[in-house]
Amino acid sequence: MNAAILGAGAMGHVLAQTIEEHQGMSLSGIVEPRNGERIHDIEGQVDVVIDFSNPDNLEMLMDYCIARSCPAVIATTGFSLEQQQMITDMAQQVPVVFAANFSLGITVMKRVLQEITPILEDSFDIEVIEKHHNKKLDSPSGTAKMLVNAINGQGKYEEVHGREGNRKRGREIGIHAIRGGTIAGEHDVIFAGDDEILEIKHTAGSKKIFAAGAVKAAAFAQTAGPGLYNMENVLFGD
Amino acid sequence: MNAAILGAGAMGHVLAQTIEEHQGMSLSGIVEPRNGERIHDIEGQVDVVIDFSNPDNLEMLMDYCIARSCPAVIATTGFSLEQQQMITDMAQQVPVVFAANFSLGITVMKRVLQEITPILEDSFDIEVIEKHHNKKLDSPSGTAKMLVNAINGQGKYEEVHGREGNRKRGREIGIHAIRGGTIAGEHDVIFAGDDEILEIKHTAGSKKIFAAGAVKAAAFAQTAGPGLYNMENVLFGD
Amino acid sequence: MNAAILGAGAMGHVLAQTIEEHQGMSLSGIVEPRNGERIHDIEGQVDVVIDFSNPDNLEMLMDYCIARSCPAVIATTGFSLEQQQMITDMAQQVPVVFAANFSLGITVMKRVLQEITPILEDSFDIEVIEKHHNKKLDSPSGTAKMLVNAINGQGKYEEVHGREGNRKRGREIGIHAIRGGTIAGEHDVIFAGDDEILEIKHTAGSKKIFAAGAVKAAAFAQTAGPGLYNMENVLFGD
Amino acid sequence: MNAAILGAGAMGHVLAQTIEEHQGMSLSGIVEPRNGERIHDIEGQVDVVIDFSNPDNLEMLMDYCIARSCPAVIATTGFSLEQQQMITDMAQQVPVVFAANFSLGITVMKRVLQEITPILEDSFDIEVIEKHHNKKLDSPSGTAKMLVNAINGQGKYEEVHGREGNRKRGREIGIHAIRGGTIAGEHDVIFAGDDEILEIKHTAGSKKIFAAGAVKAAAFAQTAGPGLYNMENVLFGD
Repeated sequence: MNAAILGAGAMGHVLAQTIEEHQGMSLSGIVEPRNGERIHDIEGQVDVVIDFSNPDNLEMLMDYCIARSCPAVIATTGFSLEQQQMITDMAQQVPVVFAANFSLGITVMKRVLQEITPILEDSFDIEVIEKHHNKKLDSPSGTAKMLVNAINGQGKYEEVHGREGNRKRGREIGIHAIRGGTIAGEHDVIFAGDDEILEIKHTAGSKKIFAAGAVKAAAFAQTAGPGLYNMENVLFGD
Repeated sequence: MNAAILGAGAMGHVLAQTIEEHQGMSLSGIVEPRNGERIHDIEGQVDVVIDFSNPDNLEMLMDYCIARSCPAVIATTGFSLEQQQMITDMAQQVPVVFAANFSLGITVMKRVLQEITPILEDSFDIEVIEKHHNKKLDSPSGTAKMLVNAINGQGKYEEVHGREGNRKRGREIGIHAIRGGTIAGEHDVIFAGDDEILEIKHTAGSKKIFAAGAVKAAAFAQTAGPGLYNMENVLFGD
Repeated sequence: MNAAILGAGAMGHVLAQTIEEHQGMSLSGIVEPRNGERIHDIEGQVDVVIDFSNPDNLEMLMDYCIARSCPAVIATTGFSLEQQQMITDMAQQVPVVFAANFSLGITVMKRVLQEITPILEDSFDIEVIEKHHNKKLDSPSGTAKMLVNAINGQGKYEEVHGREGNRKRGREIGIHAIRGGTIAGEHDVIFAGDDEILEIKHTAGSKKIFAAGAVKAAAFAQTAGPGLYNMENVLFGD
Repeated sequence: MNAAILGAGAMGHVLAQTIEEHQGMSLSGIVEPRNGERIHDIEGQVDVVIDFSNPDNLEMLMDYCIARSCPAVIATTGFSLEQQQMITDMAQQVPVVFAANFSLGITVMKRVLQEITPILEDSFDIEVIEKHHNKKLDSPSGTAKMLVNAINGQGKYEEVHGREGNRKRGREIGIHAIRGGTIAGEHDVIFAGDDEILEIKHTAGSKKIFAAGAVKAAAFAQTAGPGLYNMENVLFGD
């Protein structure tokens, strides 16, 4: 499979390297629209376009993919509602994988949490610990919020951010944001019951994990029919 | 729900305490066949019998449950093939929950491993670490073997027990048995991929976890029709 | 060594069992003053008295130990200032080990933290995570406070209990109290630096750990001269 | 402080970046002897030379440092006995920091293990778990061997690499090498006692940790008198 990359920023370069190291894939080209480059300029075969650029290039991407019936993987974030509608429209003609987080591990973790929470929540208390570097300003992390939402989508539990003083644990999920050093990202969900604990923990080492997910998504898109897919569709095929 | 316990050993007593502390359950009685006691001697209501004794009492259990259409939870191990057939026959007339490990956490963990291994195994290496007390003779633990079997049921991977010297990691699962102090039991399955790790970890504190699972199984059995069920049926309802 | 136990409560019984299992130690007797029993009633050799009772028995302990030049290990808490002075006086005549926490692991952990914090604090951020059961009312735990005090005795750092919202990590120690299930007690101190993390973590399984420490203290007291000692003296001999 | 770097390989470049980001330090220059470059060519102030090159450049380093009374930090490995003697001689005239592992965390961990092992070993079992990427050929890692040596320098314990089958834990240290994905390096030493566990764990994220240690060593060397120092001297000042 020959993949073209839209966006030659940090993620684009990580992706280019991942593609080159991936058996059965080769890089058709990487273009940076800020430098006036266009996907249309890429010569040779393009079986899929992976977009790690910014919302401004959506029209170019759409134009190119529809004209050539070429699948797209969109890892760019920050689209307007109108642009999201454009992606939905585009997906009626070509396969499009569109997700906010391309990490395989986080996608699987979210799925597992959705599945096991209803089974365990009656007899286990749930707590979430996330760790990131000391420069990160927001607490908890966006990924932690997404995971808590997978557990507490119906709002059954109060979300408690740290504890101090005297108070009985209630119908709540404790969420704990550790900040220190250069930790790339760790998310740990703890189910604590009667004399047993079940823990699901994800540790990220770098941005490379998003590239690996995008490559899986590209392989999926190539065999899929037109439609809008997310990473759960890619990994679990449902 | 009124539960009778067959077997007044360590587990029987832990179970009795769990039942007494459990809202909506009460203990009809606990009998020890080694002392010549029989379930039939228990006076008052019995809605379910939970067996934590030994295979010798199967006939008594079967006789009692069939005569009274009373569900059974069998947590005894070591049955002969013939006895296992008796359990299957018994289950045609009353609901029977029969499992080797009643821990909620381990049951969920096994299920999760079966589900996510096919998704992750192409791009993640799998390693298993288990920890137990320094008196434990067998390595790896029976539970570790069960979990490895959930991952490697088709025998795709060589199972490697520790590593020393120079050798490239092959198509293998590393299994590591830590022994020390009085550790009750810890099982950690690690999926290590490109710059990300997903970990599923279970920590047991005591035998009480088997009692808690047996109580869940008892509640399930009371509402189920005749049939043979395991802990996955109890927890996941399929 | 023959040890007598003052106080036949839960801890007294755990201690009795620990002594009986300990090579080179035997139990002279265990007395419960609430039942009108006195150490003086114990027949046979007494080389050390271990007190796990309550402050009311201090006079009896002191009287007995001074009269027979018998060392004492005091694991009782809640003494008045006057009683603390009595202990100091007593220690001029016999060896007395007196400490608030007899766990070997926590004593060692505190010592290690005191030693390594000055070495690491310029280039590592410090965070503390403690986990306890869902019935525990106070956050953070007393032991966590003791460990934070070992790190931050001079008050260099602001102590932050959980994080939420947007804020830059400052000159602070994050302290995180996880509550769930029946967790006996876990204390984890994290030094997070540039691409490296050093972690010191203690996990308690039961009250037995205080008995093991008391036995070590008894052995120490038997060879020590008169004086007042704590667990650091016992373990590190300084 | 102005530092010159000898060796423009991967580590040299990581070090250059670390120096530039470090307050109070600036980079005098970085030279690669393989390209015919010499430290002597660096213009401007050089207060310390940090060597991350190879043993072949020792003579150049020695010549330069002695002539200018300039301290040296030697992070190169693989010196012959004769070359080691040269380093010892050089250290009589200028301060030299020479170590095999410049990580602050590992240096502290080794020191802590040396200190606490004699305190804990009578009542705790010791096990070592190390994790590295799936390309690493040797097991256990060199760092794990160094840490085990800090614990077991006198050879009291048999070193056991993994466990399988039936065998009672003896007078031994279990050493477990986990291999998977791209794990940069994790070393975990577990002291497991009676119902308590004390754990010292180091996690490395990248090679940057050796650069940070080299910078600390450079600052130390600048204020030290002539002499041969290792990382423990740098960190603990004894």
